[in-house]
Amino acid sequence: MSKRIRAAVVGLGNIGHAALEAIEAADDFELAGLVRRKTSLDRTLPRALAGLPVAADVADLGPVDVVLLATPTRETPAIARTYLERGIRTVDSFDLHGDIVRVRRELHAVARAGGAVAVVAAGWDPGTDSVVRALFELMAPRGITTTNFGPGMSMGHTVAVKAIPGVRDALSLTIPAGAGVHRRMVYVALEPGADPDAVRQAILADPYFAHDETHVAFVDDVERLKDVGHGVVMERKGTSGRTANQRFSFEMRIHNPALTAQVMVSAARAAMRLQPGAYTLIEIPPVAFLPGDVETWIARLV
Amino acid sequence: MSKRIRAAVVGLGNIGHAALEAIEAADDFELAGLVRRKTSLDRTLPRALAGLPVAADVADLGPVDVVLLATPTRETPAIARTYLERGIRTVDSFDLHGDIVRVRRELHAVARAGGAVAVVAAGWDPGTDSVVRALFELMAPRGITTTNFGPGMSMGHTVAVKAIPGVRDALSLTIPAGAGVHRRMVYVALEPGADPDAVRQAILADPYFAHDETHVAFVDDVERLKDVGHGVVMERKGTSGRTANQRFSFEMRIHNPALTAQVMVSAARAAMRLQPGAYTLIEIPPVAFLPGDVETWIARLV
Repeated sequence: MSKRIRAAVVGLGNIGHAALEAIEAADDFELAGLVRRKTSLDRTLPRALAGLPVAADVADLGPVDVVLLATPTRETPAIARTYLERGIRTVDSFDLHGDIVRVRRELHAVARAGGAVAVVAAGWDPGTDSVVRALFELMAPRGITTTNFGPGMSMGHTVAVKAIPGVRDALSLTIPAGAGVHRRMVYVALEPGADPDAVRQAILADPYFAHDETHVAFVDDVERLKDVGHGVVMERKGTSGRTANQRFSFEMRIHNPALTAQVMVSAARAAMRLQPGAYTLIEIPPVAFLPGDVETWIARLV
Repeated sequence: MSKRIRAAVVGLGNIGHAALEAIEAADDFELAGLVRRKTSLDRTLPRALAGLPVAADVADLGPVDVVLLATPTRETPAIARTYLERGIRTVDSFDLHGDIVRVRRELHAVARAGGAVAVVAAGWDPGTDSVVRALFELMAPRGITTTNFGPGMSMGHTVAVKAIPGVRDALSLTIPAGAGVHRRMVYVALEPGADPDAVRQAILADPYFAHDETHVAFVDDVERLKDVGHGVVMERKGTSGRTANQRFSFEMRIHNPALTAQVMVSAARAAMRLQPGAYTLIEIPPVAFLPGDVETWIARLV
C-alpha cells in the first residue's frame, strides 16, 4: 500500500463530524486533525473526538495533503483560497448552483498559482447528481431532466435561515412537488423579542428561497423536528440518435451529511491525482475517486 | 462552431444502423461514410441510406477523425488495432466483461504507438452502467451493488448464438431473476438438417451462457419474437463513512441499439479530447462526452 493521504477537516458542524468519520473509515487516509476558528478552540470536543488534534492553523497539524472544508457555503470560497495559496489541496461542498462557474474559475487561478488542486461543489447536489445528469445527457442528448429533491432537510437552506438576525434555530425542509418543482417548509424558533414578520421577509428574499414556494412556520422547539434523512429522484425521458422514449431514473434515500462527507473524502482522493487547478465532479474521471489501481476497478465495475 | 468531427461507421448491423442515425443527429459531427467488408460492398444499401459513401477501406472516405466499430464483439479488438495503427481514433462497444482489462491494455499500447485514442466498452453495460457502479462505490464504499438486466433482447448473446453452426436465426432474451441473477431464454431457428442437441450444447458451453441458467427453445420464426427494448435496474445499499442504509437505485428502459450507438457517438466526442491511449468510460471525465464548452455544462448540470 502506498503512503496514506493525510487529510484535515475544517469546521465541526454536521458535515465536519461526518467528514471525520468518513476519513477514519477510509483505509487509504490518515486523519491529521481538525481546524477550528480561534474562537472555538477553547470549546470542549465531544467525547467521541477526545484525543483528536485541533488547531486554529493547519500548519500546526503537521504535513497535510488535503483539507475538507466543512464551513458555511458562503464563506467557503474565501477559506479555500487561503489553503490553495499555500499549496494545500481543498475539497468543498459549495452548493450555490448559480455561483459555481465563477467560484471554480476564481479558485482555478489560485490553485494553479499555488500548485494545488481544488475540487469544488463535491457533495451530492451539486456533485454526484451532476454526474448523473451528465450521463443522462450523453445517453439521450434531447429531452428533459427533472431533479426532485426530498422530502428532507436541506442543510444549505437551513444554514442560510440560521444566519438571519433574530433566528435562534431553524430547519428548512424540501418537499418535491413534481417535475422538478419544490416547496420549502421553513420551521423557525425566534430569539426573544425578534420580529416574526422581519424574519419571514428576510427568508423569502434570500436567494436560497426566492425562486420556490416557501412557507415559514414559527415553533418553540426545532430540535425535535430534525431528521437528516434526504433523497432525490432524477428522471429523464429523451432521444438517443433518432429514437424517442428512452427513459432513465436515478433515486436515492440517504443520510445527508454522511453522503456529503463521503463524496468529499472520495473527491479528496481524486484531488491527489489531478493536475493543479479547480474541478467540479463532471470534470473528473469517475475511477479517480476510488482507492487503488485502475485495472482492479475496470475488472470489478466495467 | 469549431470544425465538425468527421466520423465513419464500420459495419451495418443493428448498432451500425443506429450509429449512422446518431451521427447525423449530432450537430458537431459529420458523417464520412460507412466501411463494409469487401464481400458486402456489392449489396444494395437500404433506401434510407441511398447516397451514403461506402468503402471497404476507410482511406477511401476522405479524412476520418474517428471510427465507430459496429462489428461483432469478438472481432472488434483486432479491427480496432488496424485503425489505431494508422492513427485513427476508435470507439467500440466490446462487451465481454472478463476480457476488457486485457483488450484495453493491448489497445492502449497500439493507440499510443499510433498517436490515437481508443474508447473501449462504450455501450451501456459495459459502459454507462459501469460509471453508475463507480458512482455507487464512491458514495458508499461498503455495500453490495446488484445489476439486474432486462427483460430484453441481449445483442451480444444473440450474435454469439447466431455464430453457432446450424443456427439460421436466434434471439437471446435476458430475464432478471433478482439480486443480480439472470435467466437466459434463447430462441433458435435451425438450418435444415441441423442437430438441435449439438446446437443446444454449443450454446450452453459458450462463455456468454455458461454462468447463467439458460433455456433453449427451437422455433420456426425468430423474427416475429424480436423487440429491441431493454432495460436495467441497478441497486446499492451501502455505508457512507460509518452510516449504514444508504440506498441508491438506477433504472432505465431503452431501445438497446439506439442507446448503444448514442453512447458510442458521445464517446467519439470524448476521443477527440483525450491523450493517446485506450480508455474505458470510468476513466473519462463525464463532461468530455458532451458537445461545446465545459463552463456551459457546469452552469447547466452542476
